[in-house]
Amino acid sequence: MKSVDLNCDLGESFGAYTDLLAVDTKVLPYISSANIACGFHAGDPLVMQKTVRAVLSSGVSLGAHPGLPDLAGFGRRNMSISPEEAESYIIYQVGALQSFAFAEGASLRHVKPHGALYNMAAKDLKLAEGICRGISRLCKNGNELVLVGLYGSQLIEAAKKVGIPYACEVFADRAYNDDGSLVSRSLPNAVIHNEEEAVTRSVRMVRDGIVTSVSGKEIPVQADTICVHGDNPSAIAFVQKIREALASENIEISHL
Amino acid sequence: MKSVDLNCDLGESFGAYTDLLAVDTKVLPYISSANIACGFHAGDPLVMQKTVRAVLSSGVSLGAHPGLPDLAGFGRRNMSISPEEAESYIIYQVGALQSFAFAEGASLRHVKPHGALYNMAAKDLKLAEGICRGISRLCKNGNELVLVGLYGSQLIEAAKKVGIPYACEVFADRAYNDDGSLVSRSLPNAVIHNEEEAVTRSVRMVRDGIVTSVSGKEIPVQADTICVHGDNPSAIAFVQKIREALASENIEISHL
Amino acid sequence: MKSVDLNCDLGESFGAYTDLLAVDTKVLPYISSANIACGFHAGDPLVMQKTVRAVLSSGVSLGAHPGLPDLAGFGRRNMSISPEEAESYIIYQVGALQSFAFAEGASLRHVKPHGALYNMAAKDLKLAEGICRGISRLCKNGNELVLVGLYGSQLIEAAKKVGIPYACEVFADRAYNDDGSLVSRSLPNAVIHNEEEAVTRSVRMVRDGIVTSVSGKEIPVQADTICVHGDNPSAIAFVQKIREALASENIEISHL
Amino acid sequence: MKSVDLNCDLGESFGAYTDLLAVDTKVLPYISSANIACGFHAGDPLVMQKTVRAVLSSGVSLGAHPGLPDLAGFGRRNMSISPEEAESYIIYQVGALQSFAFAEGASLRHVKPHGALYNMAAKDLKLAEGICRGISRLCKNGNELVLVGLYGSQLIEAAKKVGIPYACEVFADRAYNDDGSLVSRSLPNAVIHNEEEAVTRSVRMVRDGIVTSVSGKEIPVQADTICVHGDNPSAIAFVQKIREALASENIEISHL
Repeated sequence: MKSVDLNCDLGESFGAYTDLLAVDTKVLPYISSANIACGFHAGDPLVMQKTVRAVLSSGVSLGAHPGLPDLAGFGRRNMSISPEEAESYIIYQVGALQSFAFAEGASLRHVKPHGALYNMAAKDLKLAEGICRGISRLCKNGNELVLVGLYGSQLIEAAKKVGIPYACEVFADRAYNDDGSLVSRSLPNAVIHNEEEAVTRSVRMVRDGIVTSVSGKEIPVQADTICVHGDNPSAIAFVQKIREALASENIEISHL
Repeated sequence: MKSVDLNCDLGESFGAYTDLLAVDTKVLPYISSANIACGFHAGDPLVMQKTVRAVLSSGVSLGAHPGLPDLAGFGRRNMSISPEEAESYIIYQVGALQSFAFAEGASLRHVKPHGALYNMAAKDLKLAEGICRGISRLCKNGNELVLVGLYGSQLIEAAKKVGIPYACEVFADRAYNDDGSLVSRSLPNAVIHNEEEAVTRSVRMVRDGIVTSVSGKEIPVQADTICVHGDNPSAIAFVQKIREALASENIEISHL
Repeated sequence: MKSVDLNCDLGESFGAYTDLLAVDTKVLPYISSANIACGFHAGDPLVMQKTVRAVLSSGVSLGAHPGLPDLAGFGRRNMSISPEEAESYIIYQVGALQSFAFAEGASLRHVKPHGALYNMAAKDLKLAEGICRGISRLCKNGNELVLVGLYGSQLIEAAKKVGIPYACEVFADRAYNDDGSLVSRSLPNAVIHNEEEAVTRSVRMVRDGIVTSVSGKEIPVQADTICVHGDNPSAIAFVQKIREALASENIEISHL
Repeated sequence: MKSVDLNCDLGESFGAYTDLLAVDTKVLPYISSANIACGFHAGDPLVMQKTVRAVLSSGVSLGAHPGLPDLAGFGRRNMSISPEEAESYIIYQVGALQSFAFAEGASLRHVKPHGALYNMAAKDLKLAEGICRGISRLCKNGNELVLVGLYGSQLIEAAKKVGIPYACEVFADRAYNDDGSLVSRSLPNAVIHNEEEAVTRSVRMVRDGIVTSVSGKEIPVQADTICVHGDNPSAIAFVQKIREALASENIEISHL
């Protein structure tokens, strides 16, 4: 039986900005993995504490969502950090979150870089290796951590080189180029706005390992996990639709 | 044979302000425990990485030095954080540092709150309990962490209440009140400027468990660890003098 | 004809947390002065830019709302900053906001310290003097700035001592002690939950300069400006009620 | 009589990291303009206060040195901020520093973007325009501010387009390409290590408007201001040598 993971970013509140805390819990029944912000681009110790508890009580798998040290930019602005900085940022942030998991008797399952860190590392092997080295150094004594990276990206290449487990991520609502990369958001056709089409594409990526590129070509894709969102009601409704469509194809939702 | 620990704050560089990195290594031959800043009041991931490596290669015992989230004030300004915030700040910072230790195949031995957090918790049992609860939640599966707190303070009381191991800290160069508390730095006689006197007092606190208070009274004191400094040559010379004096009394220097 | 100012905190968004930006504009038709966050406890340059423009286009008077350097705590946690630090923090934050006003051809009218800075300075004359010295040093060449402080507080005393213009602030929904100070929020009767009563008290404070204390005593109060809120629909409805009640007593709403 | 400005970065201390405060005053006798950090990449309100006073008491001209919001990276890491963000960051930082100058009865003369902001804007006209728009919006009512930018760069182009005064900066110790741009620091011959050669080149750039490029070609250059450093004794000795060489050619040192 085929299976796929549904992952969602959580714990993106900060300080007095806690509107998302209540929203976060609404998507939990529909996903299998949660990526939790670690205080650099979003999140703070109290938010991490609460989010880890909410995720654990829902049975969803815990993962870290480390980002760039850019709270004002929500980690979405490229920053030219060195591979050594990336490595140390990963160790710091994953360690901080791991500590909250450990305090609850749980542990982390995966690490998914956030925002600009994810996107830069998708194209920059040296940076991606820094990230994967950081994860690798925390993978000892049975403390295995799975890197989540864009299918076909340098992050996945780096995970292979460094020798850590990885999961290939696909996007339900994004268009793909012929080479398997995402169509840049600066282009008009980057996002699939038709929900039905997005659901159909998702199922096909998981079931058949194929997606249709912007040029109409059928290209291979590995879909270990699908990125979904939970920060508004329509996003959550969309996650439910994907679940139903996957279920009707006998595809199991299971964490990494 | 009697023994005592000599602990020193390290890793207090940040970003481009790295003058202390070179200084840090100079005191390592003379101490038994290092308290490493965790990024809130000082330190950053690269500094933590370098400091953990330097400490481990010297054979000195590793500990965390978590502080208030006040980089501009170096964690020296009182902040009215709640016990819950303190607990989560401890988990976050100790976890981040632990991760760097783990990446090197090592682990942390102790946690000493920094600056204003240490001083506030010395007098505020609720805050001290928050700190100790944070430490306690990380003390599982053989991952034992020793709280370092001012002898006679609420931090030590909290450690007893919460049930975590603790070590009583004394200060070589500070005057004591009759009740065993430190004479406030706002008073003129708070600091012992005579080095010889400070050394003699240190030895007596360790050997006999006694210190002479400002009023001339002999009061009991428990000296598990002595706080020393390493940020300038005369401080390091002073540490060497204490070591020699302790050695001549057959008191061993050994980590917690 | 009597008059009073209605002041409200605005521009408290930060980075990606911009939900309040839309809310901010809704209260503008009903207030006469806006206190704009300056980036320490909330706000960032883009938010300040947008908020200054929204306030100016509404005809409301612009003021600065400088706070403690504690974004994670929203400036609500007491911090033991020195009077010199307070002075320099005021100059920095007010200057930054003034620059956005100047860029639009406008200028600031008042300065109201935020949160814990306001509350600490209400009781600490030295800190209050640091704040007022900062304001005073920016009051030159016709650049007059009015301090807004709690009626009867050390902030008002400091403004008198330092020699800057000031406005006494009252709270519609807070209970007063016999000495004119606010009943501490830690006590059960600190807040007036009955809206009608709060409106009636507001009118009386402005019209008669009298408020009934918790002990039932009628005490004098100077109400130059009333603090109102605009971060949710019921708060805005309450501001409208106060406006109507003041209008029916022929009390004009006019900025400081 | 020919003249040139000598500009130097000052006020780069932060919080407890104040070693540079004492160093800063040593270079003041030899320069004509000081670029003062504004709290984003370095500097804090107390440091800005002290630095403005030191600069004013030395008679050196005051300028702002706004940078990227990256304290941990000292503003030296490229960040993909938008032109709108750059504009608002300039207004915020220049305003904050202007306020300290105003508090001393002085005003700012110039604005020189710092580090990665300077370098990115040298090549990115849109970003450079954002910066110059920020400066332009503060140039009203006789409050003229001169942009300092790399000779031949997009920053100078943007200043011309936006219509603000500008000064072209040259570097004594950097090699130039044939097109007048600096040889990248990633190349081995980027820096002129021979002090005598650097001095000779500086004089020639000012006196003749000519510099020899790496290929040996004589290329035109406009040298309104020379960037010098003051953070160590040999840097200060070098500034003195440039001064003497300029004096012997009857070139006056005068601020912008």
